[in-house]
Formats: sequence, structure tokens, C-alpha cells
Amino acid sequence: MKFNLQHKDQASKARAGRILTDHGEIQTPIFMPVGTAGSVKAVHQRELTYDIKAQIILGNTYHLYLRPGLQVLEAAGGLHKFMGWTGPILTDSGGYQVFSLADSRKITEEAVMFQSHIDGSRHHFSPESVMDVQRSIGADIIMAFDECTPYPCEWNYAKTSLALTQRWLGRCKQRFDTTEGKYGYQQALFPIVQGSTYKDLRQDAARFVADQDMEGNAIGGLSVGEPAELMYEMTDLVTDLLPKEKPRYLMGVGTPANILEAIGLGIDMFDCVMPTRNARNGMLFTTEGIINIRNEKWKADFSPIDTGFPSHVSSFYTRAYLRHLTISKEMLAAQIASIHNLSFYLWLVAQAREHIIKGDFLPWKNAMVEKVGRRL
Amino acid sequence: MKFNLQHKDQASKARAGRILTDHGEIQTPIFMPVGTAGSVKAVHQRELTYDIKAQIILGNTYHLYLRPGLQVLEAAGGLHKFMGWTGPILTDSGGYQVFSLADSRKITEEAVMFQSHIDGSRHHFSPESVMDVQRSIGADIIMAFDECTPYPCEWNYAKTSLALTQRWLGRCKQRFDTTEGKYGYQQALFPIVQGSTYKDLRQDAARFVADQDMEGNAIGGLSVGEPAELMYEMTDLVTDLLPKEKPRYLMGVGTPANILEAIGLGIDMFDCVMPTRNARNGMLFTTEGIINIRNEKWKADFSPIDTGFPSHVSSFYTRAYLRHLTISKEMLAAQIASIHNLSFYLWLVAQAREHIIKGDFLPWKNAMVEKVGRRL
Ligand SMILES: [Zn+2]
Ligand SMILES: [Zn+2]
Repeated sequence: MKFNLQHKDQASKARAGRILTDHGEIQTPIFMPVGTAGSVKAVHQRELTYDIKAQIILGNTYHLYLRPGLQVLEAAGGLHKFMGWTGPILTDSGGYQVFSLADSRKITEEAVMFQSHIDGSRHHFSPESVMDVQRSIGADIIMAFDECTPYPCEWNYAKTSLALTQRWLGRCKQRFDTTEGKYGYQQALFPIVQGSTYKDLRQDAARFVADQDMEGNAIGGLSVGEPAELMYEMTDLVTDLLPKEKPRYLMGVGTPANILEAIGLGIDMFDCVMPTRNARNGMLFTTEGIINIRNEKWKADFSPIDTGFPSHVSSFYTRAYLRHLTISKEMLAAQIASIHNLSFYLWLVAQAREHIIKGDFLPWKNAMVEKVGRRL
Repeated sequence: MKFNLQHKDQASKARAGRILTDHGEIQTPIFMPVGTAGSVKAVHQRELTYDIKAQIILGNTYHLYLRPGLQVLEAAGGLHKFMGWTGPILTDSGGYQVFSLADSRKITEEAVMFQSHIDGSRHHFSPESVMDVQRSIGADIIMAFDECTPYPCEWNYAKTSLALTQRWLGRCKQRFDTTEGKYGYQQALFPIVQGSTYKDLRQDAARFVADQDMEGNAIGGLSVGEPAELMYEMTDLVTDLLPKEKPRYLMGVGTPANILEAIGLGIDMFDCVMPTRNARNGMLFTTEGIINIRNEKWKADFSPIDTGFPSHVSSFYTRAYLRHLTISKEMLAAQIASIHNLSFYLWLVAQAREHIIKGDFLPWKNAMVEKVGRRL
């Protein structure tokens, strides 16, 4: 993996760059659609490419490990071939899902024991096994195994947890450095900055991660319920300490406004289930603001969903039709809304990139944050 | 609407023809994907056109009347504009759904009173109101209001019911002839041949319908649980009596084999929920036979779903991947399987048409019936 920083904004910490992977180039800042179990929900692979213009997608290690399982993924030649996605893929470490989804789990120094939320079967993830699992899945970018602390979280717990995450990072690196990709292309390992919402812990965590000199760096444990201002404060603090010549990934963020603000704080990569999950609940992010498509007011609104950016689906289908499909529980509702929301997210980060290069990111961002947060 | 009979098979009653509507041409024999509530489930409109190559789709009057309702449909300028489908549409009369779906219903000479399965609200459908409703929906081909008898059905009930269907046809025609399309294009009304599985009643019904000299004719009340042989026998009997120069529509049929046999008996048009409903349950119809994609045997089968006919989706996705999506309850499973099954159905009737024109329909049909019915 290579990262070229192409442009730094003068008025903010925003950056435009390029990540080169063996599965192609990613232009940053970028948003990564979440393809939990090897599918971006309700979206065909060609729609990812041609409608949404996704440049990299995310897979969840926990889900893929349980289903289809490593045997099938290895027999297929990795996740790319299994699902028919030829672009770059990033996998999380499974830690977040183990802590939040598994039926019961127990953390020790050595590993996390957990029971599958699907069938109750017993498994364990250790820093080493999670590296092996991500080698088998074959993502281009893989994540270190960490403990993601909840919000709020006592300082003492956060400090103890951070120390564990740091020891686990050592073990992840050790395993990663002594193994190879299974399918003939390179994988990159990103460490994760934790430390809850405590400045001292975040700074310690960021310095520790920066010292590892890895190919890219992630910020975890944010967007877990804390006020947005606190998320921005921590992000700002951490990006001041992370190396400038490596891509920075803010995990699990967020709303369009969150993403724009975080770009201004020097973040290059984002993922979030919000555009797809909210789509399935009838919430649309548009160039003019937020639409709850279930609302009576759209019943006879035969205007397109959003003509503010180029998108076939958003121009083709009307608000009244999408409302009808949503109310009628037709699957096509989720399909349309998911493509729309993801297309909008990808358009938004591409616009941010253009404005960073053009030099007017900050005023554009401030106007856009205002617009995209409105309720229509 | 116009129908041109282009070719009659010598060895069977199969025909190739062309239906001309104000929304374009339909090459027969044809299968019509079912778009119950203004959406062919799990399928985008452009997929209907470019993947499935649908030439006409079906809408359900009962569903559309309840949701989005006539006010919205009229404000949109009819169903075509509401859903963004520019090709021909056929609507059923709502009778079948009222009898099978509504919470409770009461049939009188005048009308059927029923309660919505959605909210229990009270409504009634009469021959006149159903014509009006279908004028508002604006389908190119609309159906007469009939009583579809269940199977089995006593001769006495079937005879009484048929007489009612015949009186209702008179009222449908009367209303249809004294009203006009609401959106500037022509609509055609098809009567329906009922009579359960009784030869004498079917013949009486077919002669009565033939005497009406309408633009096309339909056969209803079959494929409701009777043995396939009985369905073929009734179809054969009826097509002998229906005018040759009008298209014939066998309602609610069926499996690929059913369709091929019925084409051989002189049927031109088909609809059925089977390709989409079974797709959602993991059953695939392929050029080599029937696949239950949930079966363990496909777990590591990385071959495409079906390369026996041109279809992007069927060639792009593997059986192992589709199995994984199905087991994991991913929406994409239903999307892929629905496009696949419908593409296969449309390919199959197009092949039948080619072989009718080429003159070797019968041997081709017999070989194909064998193949498509196998369990893989
Ligand atoms: Zn999120
Ligand atoms: Zn059917």
C-alpha cells in the first residue's frame, strides 16, 4: 500500500490524497460503504461501481468468520473473488462486533471468548487469530484487534483498556510481520487509537500508534454516543499527533456533517452503516437536507428524490413512489434508498476533495454542513 | 390494441404473434412479471428492461387500489408514470385477491364487500367500480371482474358462479364502453373464461366469451391446485373455441414446464408470482433444472448460477455466493434470484417464439420440458 498526500488545505487540516492498493487506487477523503457479510445490503456489485462509485468497501471480520466461514472464503480465493468485488476492501478486526453482538463474551489478556449470535456456538478471537482470519479473508487493509470502549467510560477503565489494546497491537504486529497474504497481493495493517474521551489517554494512544510507523492509522472508540463536539475535539487532538504522510481512518463516522467536519480535522477515510441502515428505515440524506420519506408530505410529491448531484436512481424515482414502496414494505424501497444515500455520501466526499484541491474547502464545508443537516 | 398472428406451428397449436399497445409492442408468447403493488419485488425498473427484458408487466388492482390509492395514481398520471415503467401494463380485476386476501368478503349479485387485509377498512368492488379503478390505474390491458372458483369446486357452485361471472362481464363491458381512458391512450378489456374443471362449463364459458368479440381473451380459475393434466385438458378445450385472431392469456401459470405445454396448446400470454416468490425462498429455475440454493451442496460451488443463457446477473454471481447470501438473509439474495428467475422465464418464452417461427417447436419443447423440470 502507498499513500500520496496530494494537497493540504491552508485554512483547515483537510487533505486530498491517493491510496494505492493492489486492487486499485482510492482517492481521499473517501467514504467506505459497509458490506457486513460480503454484501452491501440491498445493493448489487455493479451498482457499487457504476451508481455509487465506491472506491473501497468494508467487510466485517466477525460476520465473515461466522458466515460463510474461512474454509469457503479460502476455497473461493478470498473475499474479493467470493463476492465479485475487484476493488480494494478493508476489514475491521471483529472486536467491535464481538463486544456488541455476540451473545456473551469474556475478555482475558490472551483472547476474547464469545458465543455466536447466530447459533450460540463458542469461539475465541485473539490478536493472533484475528490476523490469521483477516489473512484468510484477504482484505487489502486489515485492522488491529482492540478493545473499543463504550461511552461513557470511567477514566480507570479506559486507561486499563488502552494498555490492553496497546499490548494486543504488539501481538498483532508480531503475527502480521511473520505471515504473508494468502492470495498473492499485499495487505496493510492499521493500528487503532483508543482512549475514550480523555485527552491524556488519547494523546498517549496517538503517540504510541505514531511510534509504530505503520502504513496507515485509525481512530476508534468515537461515534459511540458521545456529543459530536467531544468527537471533534478528540479527533483534532489525535490528528495533530498522527504522521501526516499516512492515511487516517475515523472508524464508524457518521452523518454527512460529521464527515465534513472530520475531513476538516485531517481525516482521510470513513465508514458507517448510517447511509444503508437509515435508508432501510426511510431516512434519506440529500443535497438539500434530510428526508423522512414515510412522511405524509411526500405522498403526492412527484419530483425526483434528489437532482442535486448526478445519480440515475435519485433522478429516476420520485419521492411519492419511494414513499409508497416504503409504506408498502416493498424491498425496492430499501434498494433505492440505499443506492441513493451511498451515492450521496460518495458524491459528498468527492466534492470535499475537489474543494480541498481548489482551495476553498472551509467556506464550502461550512455552507454544506448547514444544508445537509436540515430536516426537509 | 392490435394483435398480429405471425406464425402458427404445424405440429401443435403454438403461435407467434405481436400485440401492439400505445406503450409499445409485445412479442408473443410472452411472460409478464408480476408487479403487485407497483414494483416487481426486489427488481429495479431498469433491470426489468435491460436484464430481464420484460415487454409487459402486471399490476394488481386490489393492492394498487388500497395503496397508494387512486388519488395518488391519478395525480401521478397513472401507474406507468407513478412507477416509471414506460412499457405496456396489464392489471387484473382484483377479484382473485378480494376472494383470497381480504380479511372477510361477501359476494352479492351487485358487488363484493370486503375488508382490507392492511387495516380492516371496508370497501366494495363491483363490475362497474373495477372498470373505473382500472381506468384510473391506466393499464393498457384491463381484466373483467369475475369470480375465480377454487379447486376442487362442486359442479353446481361452478355453474352458478359462471353465470354470475357472465352477467358481470355484461356490466363490465357496458361500463367500459361508456367510459374512456384517462391519460390519452387506449385500454383494452379482456373477458375471462371460468368454469372450474368441468368440460361442459368451460365450453359454455369459452363460447360465451368468444361471442363477445373482445380484443383478447383470458382463461382464469386454473393453476389453483388441480393436477397439471387437468389444467392442460381445460386449456386445450378452451383454446379450440376462442378466436384465433385474438391473444389468449392463461392467468397465473406457472412453472417453466407448464408454460411450455400451454404455449403448445395455443396460449400467448402468462403471468405468475412463482419466479419471484420462489426466488425469495431460494428456488432457482435454470436452463439445466431446478436448484434449491440453500442446499449444502452449493456451499463451495464457485461456478456461476447459470451460463446457459445470456444474463449478467446469472453469470456474474456464483452459486456459493448466492447460497451464502440466502442463508445469511441478505436482501441481495432475493434481488439476484428474482432477476435470475425472471430473466430465465423471459428467455424461455423468447426461445419458444423462435422455435415456433423456425418450425421445430414441438421437439424443442419436449426436450426442454424434460430439462427444466429436473432437480439439480
Ligand atoms: Zn456509524
Ligand atoms: Zn402462479
